[in-house]
Amino acid sequence: MAATPSEDRTLVLLRHGESDWNAKNLFTGWVDVDLTDKGRAEAAAGGRLLRESGLLPDVVHTSLLRRAITTAALSLDAADRHWIPVRRTWRLNERHYGALQGKDKKQTLAEYGEEQFMLWRRSFDTPPPEIDLDDEFSQAHDPRYADLGDEMPRTECLADVIARLMPWWEGDAAADLQSGRVVLVAAHGNSLRAIVKHLDGIGDDEIAGLNIPTGQPLVYRLGDDLRPLGPGEYLDPEAAAAAAAAVANQGR
Amino acid sequence: MAATPSEDRTLVLLRHGESDWNAKNLFTGWVDVDLTDKGRAEAAAGGRLLRESGLLPDVVHTSLLRRAITTAALSLDAADRHWIPVRRTWRLNERHYGALQGKDKKQTLAEYGEEQFMLWRRSFDTPPPEIDLDDEFSQAHDPRYADLGDEMPRTECLADVIARLMPWWEGDAAADLQSGRVVLVAAHGNSLRAIVKHLDGIGDDEIAGLNIPTGQPLVYRLGDDLRPLGPGEYLDPEAAAAAAAAVANQGR
Repeated sequence: MAATPSEDRTLVLLRHGESDWNAKNLFTGWVDVDLTDKGRAEAAAGGRLLRESGLLPDVVHTSLLRRAITTAALSLDAADRHWIPVRRTWRLNERHYGALQGKDKKQTLAEYGEEQFMLWRRSFDTPPPEIDLDDEFSQAHDPRYADLGDEMPRTECLADVIARLMPWWEGDAAADLQSGRVVLVAAHGNSLRAIVKHLDGIGDDEIAGLNIPTGQPLVYRLGDDLRPLGPGEYLDPEAAAAAAAAVANQGR
Repeated sequence: MAATPSEDRTLVLLRHGESDWNAKNLFTGWVDVDLTDKGRAEAAAGGRLLRESGLLPDVVHTSLLRRAITTAALSLDAADRHWIPVRRTWRLNERHYGALQGKDKKQTLAEYGEEQFMLWRRSFDTPPPEIDLDDEFSQAHDPRYADLGDEMPRTECLADVIARLMPWWEGDAAADLQSGRVVLVAAHGNSLRAIVKHLDGIGDDEIAGLNIPTGQPLVYRLGDDLRPLGPGEYLDPEAAAAAAAAVANQGR
């Protein structure tokens, strides 16, 4: 089923819904929290949108984090595509939030002020302070990252996320897209922002303003150079706009 | 992490728990029914047994059927191993029950009598009648089997299941086991009976008496020839014996 030069490659991005720590307003990063019941419902609703639109994934890529893995499982089950091949990679993980992991967002905002808070949340190239290896919210000893060696982050800015994401994009993602498969990516706010920045050619300064809504499938048609043939489109544009506004107000 | 000749290879078999049609006592086969809440609880309990025993899968293989796929997801989530690689294959599917798919077991027993009923359920080499291609319970037009061509079954006996399972055993399963990975197989009564028959060298006549309990991890240690170093062992032998007895009485 290899795609021919005249054929579209289809990429569907899906951000996981509400997690336990979204609900508690804590910085999460690589901490492996679960979805809330609301987050599970968001995932299933995203899958129903896929099914209703006839946009049926042939392969799914996820991060190594439970909230994306479960989002993939629940959305594909709702789309009756639970049986497709699965690929997992740490390169799709959420941005590592460094020493902020486990900290309350409102409290951090009050403690450090608006400017520092927004710098950590939205700056392209300023990472938060590094997390201690023995911090309770460090993943330094997590077996799923045992093979990472020097690539194991202790904090990340968005530029770091892009750097560790690109080998996946140019490797496994490109291979699946070029073979003509509809590729679903179930991942996180910042790993998906990294993909959208790359696809849409968004500048380092402009990307701060981009918020990706949860549970809303975002569809790109790509050419044979894997560049977008047009803007990404949400299957439910109104719901997506409302959800993006809600994300922008997090921490307030 | 390739296994050395002196090292064990570890295989863990897990049969899915109660499905909607187990609960309704219908022949299921390749019909893609969901787990009941009881079946979901069985899967999670199986995962907790894995975690408590320190038996941590490095890779999971499932069939293409929802009840095995969800069992894998829920058990691995409970074992905190949700992030391991996933491989799916139709070769691990339940036995195709032919024209019996969708039929009530008690009614079939009453209609055809004990001898014919047990022949269809337990004979090694007598398949049920073939299902019509346009039967509502046929999978002839299911996209997940579109690539099967002549291998797409219209009915199967256990001998047929073994024949289509062996390419998986000698291929993907052997590769993962020989690399030293702990391999979890989440599958079905008859695909797991096929594996156990092969491993334990059970005769064609004796296999009829083997019932594999649901939700009970069954562990084999294999040598470098992938033959068992000893009998398969359940992590919870008492619960497994009780569950196997319950399976043997199905249809009564």
